[in-house]
Amino acid sequence: MTYFERLRAGIARTGSHLCVGLDPDQDRIPGGAEGAYRHCARVVRETLDHACCYKPNSAFWEQYGPEGLLVLRRLREETPPEVPFLYDAKRSDVPNTMARYAEAAFGALGMDAITCQGYHGADSLRELTRYRDRGVYVVCRSSNPGASDLQHREVEGEFLYQRMAELASSVNEDGNVGLVMGATAPTEIADIRRLSDLPFLIPGVGAQGGDLEASVRAGLSSDPASCLISASRSVLYASAPGAAAAQLAADIRAALAAA
Amino acid sequence: MTYFERLRAGIARTGSHLCVGLDPDQDRIPGGAEGAYRHCARVVRETLDHACCYKPNSAFWEQYGPEGLLVLRRLREETPPEVPFLYDAKRSDVPNTMARYAEAAFGALGMDAITCQGYHGADSLRELTRYRDRGVYVVCRSSNPGASDLQHREVEGEFLYQRMAELASSVNEDGNVGLVMGATAPTEIADIRRLSDLPFLIPGVGAQGGDLEASVRAGLSSDPASCLISASRSVLYASAPGAAAAQLAADIRAALAAA
Repeated sequence: MTYFERLRAGIARTGSHLCVGLDPDQDRIPGGAEGAYRHCARVVRETLDHACCYKPNSAFWEQYGPEGLLVLRRLREETPPEVPFLYDAKRSDVPNTMARYAEAAFGALGMDAITCQGYHGADSLRELTRYRDRGVYVVCRSSNPGASDLQHREVEGEFLYQRMAELASSVNEDGNVGLVMGATAPTEIADIRRLSDLPFLIPGVGAQGGDLEASVRAGLSSDPASCLISASRSVLYASAPGAAAAQLAADIRAALAAA
Repeated sequence: MTYFERLRAGIARTGSHLCVGLDPDQDRIPGGAEGAYRHCARVVRETLDHACCYKPNSAFWEQYGPEGLLVLRRLREETPPEVPFLYDAKRSDVPNTMARYAEAAFGALGMDAITCQGYHGADSLRELTRYRDRGVYVVCRSSNPGASDLQHREVEGEFLYQRMAELASSVNEDGNVGLVMGATAPTEIADIRRLSDLPFLIPGVGAQGGDLEASVRAGLSSDPASCLISASRSVLYASAPGAAAAQLAADIRAALAAA
């Protein structure tokens, strides 16, 4: 089974398009890397019925040093293998190096999918996409205000983020490529959906203030994986993470039904 | 002392502009992460007089899993603190996350500088540059063939890599920003030098076939840190790494003298 098949199966099993971001904050969770592990393991346990996917962001685990990656690997190993883990790592480098990032994410850490940057071009992206059973989401339009500094510059008649979507499409020979589209930019999500069928990972709902309804309306296609909605802080620091995830999953279902 | 002051002191102390890339390859070095550590620790010991800086690429340590980062941290701790370690990590994400990458690189791993991507914009880059005593190299023109896919697209009358250099300059308020300029692209190096005084990290000499003389001629300014020449495989897998580094340092000195 490929990553996107596992993701669609997860959506069917849980009835949820919610991806829970696992971004432990050492300023909010006591106990160092072990504390982060315990906190996130509990969140995964309590949200399994309401999340189709988990998305650990590498920065939040790396901030603990190597010990953070040790507990992330343990968390992946202890979660049922049919539940996909998407490594939000935004990696990029020349092809020879990108092959090592693939080994690190898909091999050493056992991740099902990864996020990456396309600035290095197609030859680099192909070092990830040649793992046909794994997923590769290319950052197209990010959710932060600085996104406009480069992504909205005009490149030969189109915006740079549109060129990025075209580059991602060009390495999608095996149907394992998606795009990262911030929920703070529903206009750009609609823009890209007009020119591409690629599945979207949509972060920025919740603490970042993204617009769930508008993003779903803009991004939805006939593919159930077309809108994977990610929330981190609003689930991770809820007093009852299971209830928070269930509520978010219901909100997403309502938005999908209305779209 | 800032990173660039430490780098210039290293150049003065060794008479070398060589940065040795520490990219252990598990297909070439036996013994897993411990083997990588032993191999690279020996390379560092034998090249200390001929290198002004070391550049571990995160992908090559991450491929070993968390154990790779444990030994990388040990290697940094055991190397004299005045010898700068530049973490070639090409990181990028939204600002809140970028702050964690800064913590990971500068805090947990004790690195003196980092490479990063600018696609997310100035707000993200500032989460790195606000560490005023550390260095931040933004990828401008990479050394791989795929570089032309996006980097050479025309953006409002300039190439994208030129826009990237402008973005990097815009966050250089504290003089701690540089650019990554592949040695396979001396024309582009000259191009960027005409519009910017930023120090260059120039990888791609050696195994990647970059042009040392042309790159140095194109990139040199009155700043001794203007051309930091990086080589990895040609030193790491030499039968005598010290002699290989000494020869490369001499070649770079000759190129600098002729420039």
